[in-house]
Amino acid sequence: MALVNEHFLKLPNNYLFADIAKKVNIFKATHKGAEVISLGIGDVTQPLCPAVIEALHKATDEMATRQGFRGYGPEQGYDFLREAILKNDFLPRGIHLDIDEVFINDGAKSDTGNIQELIRWDNTVAVTDPIYPVYIDSNAMIGRAGMKGEDGRWSNIYYMPCNAENDFVPELPERRVDVIYLCYPNNPTGTVLTKGELRKWVNYALKNEAIIFFDAAYEAYIQNPSIPHSIYEIKGARKCAIEFHSYSKTAGFTGVRCGYTIVPKELTAATLDGRRIPLNPLWNRRQCTKFNGTSYLSQRAAEAIYTPEGKRQVRQTIDYYMENSKKMLATFKDMGFDVQGGENAPYIWMRVPERSDSWRFFEELLYGAHVVCTPGVGFGPSGEGYVRFTAFGSKEQTEEALERIRKWLK
Amino acid sequence: MALVNEHFLKLPNNYLFADIAKKVNIFKATHKGAEVISLGIGDVTQPLCPAVIEALHKATDEMATRQGFRGYGPEQGYDFLREAILKNDFLPRGIHLDIDEVFINDGAKSDTGNIQELIRWDNTVAVTDPIYPVYIDSNAMIGRAGMKGEDGRWSNIYYMPCNAENDFVPELPERRVDVIYLCYPNNPTGTVLTKGELRKWVNYALKNEAIIFFDAAYEAYIQNPSIPHSIYEIKGARKCAIEFHSYSKTAGFTGVRCGYTIVPKELTAATLDGRRIPLNPLWNRRQCTKFNGTSYLSQRAAEAIYTPEGKRQVRQTIDYYMENSKKMLATFKDMGFDVQGGENAPYIWMRVPERSDSWRFFEELLYGAHVVCTPGVGFGPSGEGYVRFTAFGSKEQTEEALERIRKWLK
Repeated sequence: MALVNEHFLKLPNNYLFADIAKKVNIFKATHKGAEVISLGIGDVTQPLCPAVIEALHKATDEMATRQGFRGYGPEQGYDFLREAILKNDFLPRGIHLDIDEVFINDGAKSDTGNIQELIRWDNTVAVTDPIYPVYIDSNAMIGRAGMKGEDGRWSNIYYMPCNAENDFVPELPERRVDVIYLCYPNNPTGTVLTKGELRKWVNYALKNEAIIFFDAAYEAYIQNPSIPHSIYEIKGARKCAIEFHSYSKTAGFTGVRCGYTIVPKELTAATLDGRRIPLNPLWNRRQCTKFNGTSYLSQRAAEAIYTPEGKRQVRQTIDYYMENSKKMLATFKDMGFDVQGGENAPYIWMRVPERSDSWRFFEELLYGAHVVCTPGVGFGPSGEGYVRFTAFGSKEQTEEALERIRKWLK
Repeated sequence: MALVNEHFLKLPNNYLFADIAKKVNIFKATHKGAEVISLGIGDVTQPLCPAVIEALHKATDEMATRQGFRGYGPEQGYDFLREAILKNDFLPRGIHLDIDEVFINDGAKSDTGNIQELIRWDNTVAVTDPIYPVYIDSNAMIGRAGMKGEDGRWSNIYYMPCNAENDFVPELPERRVDVIYLCYPNNPTGTVLTKGELRKWVNYALKNEAIIFFDAAYEAYIQNPSIPHSIYEIKGARKCAIEFHSYSKTAGFTGVRCGYTIVPKELTAATLDGRRIPLNPLWNRRQCTKFNGTSYLSQRAAEAIYTPEGKRQVRQTIDYYMENSKKMLATFKDMGFDVQGGENAPYIWMRVPERSDSWRFFEELLYGAHVVCTPGVGFGPSGEGYVRFTAFGSKEQTEEALERIRKWLK
């Protein structure tokens, strides 16, 4: 008799963004003609840049000929892209990586979800709170998270609250943890870690033989030149950190699907009898077994981001979104809201007015201003009392949304 | 201290196709100028068909405009593709599925590797032997396979030998198993199951409350109209079977990455206390958490396969490969080889001459005729004494390879 993996049954049936979509659909069904502006889900709105479009057409034409046709690529990705990554994303920051430390993927969600397969089922996982739900849910599915309590916390997860009290910067764990998920620039709070703060985490991991899963999906949005773009800018990080990158937000690849993961060869985890096992070959084995590489077209598209034109065009789009962010930050402050982030990240984290809560404010905003945000509690217990806005709308929609919110508040 | 998932350490370090590539590279390095023809790895060689190329260009142009741009798609895939699948792959065979029973993926390897996440870690898994290595390895990584013995068999896997004695058709397990992997048309033996034989498996699964993971990646190669293309042609299969499809071999998508999985809503697995849990919402939850959908471009490309021109063009390429297969079968028989498959599948399974074995024959053929095949033992213990040839070469290369083998044998 086939038995189900009962860990799945501990997960709430709902998924944050599905819940939001449902509520928005109900609103639309009951308010015919109302135009809803979404600054909720973190999806981009601007088209792919011309360099990427050109690369996609060219790769398509190659696939139409016997000589140019590409079948299975390497599971780890094509060297043309891995080399471009090393040369553009790491060398200029003084980070020297080997090509076989780079694994091309179909976006960071897959790899941040799958990476936990490499570690023992009973390792203790620490997460910042609020947090991108995938980190916890992927651990819950294998039983590593324990049980979900009525307070919304999983019994085997160590939560590191990020709130107004600590300026949204997590404090080092008070007890030993084995694995730590960090995402900076942060989703959802939009905060960043300075080099000094990030160094504390690397040192903690080295001292405790912990591993950091570092999600750098939003690094392209960093404006302040002193903020690290990669955890490998910190000495010792190669021994303790795996880093995830995505082109989704960097170059509007949410529909194209491409990103990459760095698994340094120096990084090890222990066996119960104390041997140190490098994780790079294990991740390679995992990918070769359960993944057949990312679309050739998507990889050629990603390569184009690193050409001079590609770089310039991608930067323009990021600047466009950051212009939105600036406007939102200024306007929200002007309206008297308490807001975080938005300076080095495409996310703005807003405290909801007193006597409201995340979901209530979400609904008030939807019904009052026809604007969609993301309820902060969807990112974890410490997100209660906050909502997230994204800068990924169009300029016009963002301005219109701000105008509507201003009117609604009056 | 981060502990490693020690189940990974039980896996052999090598992966079949990586081993082959290494041996071929050594040969090439020591035989400059020798032109090697590969009929080994199951990768296609013919370009994408014009209808697919046109769809890719069109989708690329859409992505260049603000109106046409598509960001995150549904994790389950776009309805335009899911509907085309229902209408073309199932309805004509009298199979009525709901759209939310179809999950678009980035190729069958991911889903056949990931599907085991839904079942309990200690379920007993049965596999035909020889077998596509992913089925076992993905179970081994989570500990479900037990330990690998010196005979190449995993302690918790139930092997169903397919060999000359049973005409390469597996027999029903003699003891209860919980999960069964079946792949028909079969990789690597090229055999197919008749409706009657497939019915035996469905009945076994229903009686024992087992689940069948049915890999139909090669169904497009079936020539005999009485052979089922989908397990759902068998009554009761929706209650016990998940089916995997891929466009890799159907339409040359090995580099494009798209396929789909059917998880019927009637299919359940049990909890320890006897409740029946439908797997469809669990797979949906899994995909929403760890997957962000397949590239929009790849999904539009797949949609084009179902247009009248697409169907005709894809059929032409399949016919082209099956012409190779026919020629190989006839020639090998003429040479006195004992061969299986190749009639309803792109794979030919050849018994190696006595006093040789899989790897030895592989090397003899490589050094003697400069032709690459796949050693059967790479697919499991019952594959020893066999090699696999694929029909995916070009016509010219296939003919040249046969000619070389003929000369080599003299």
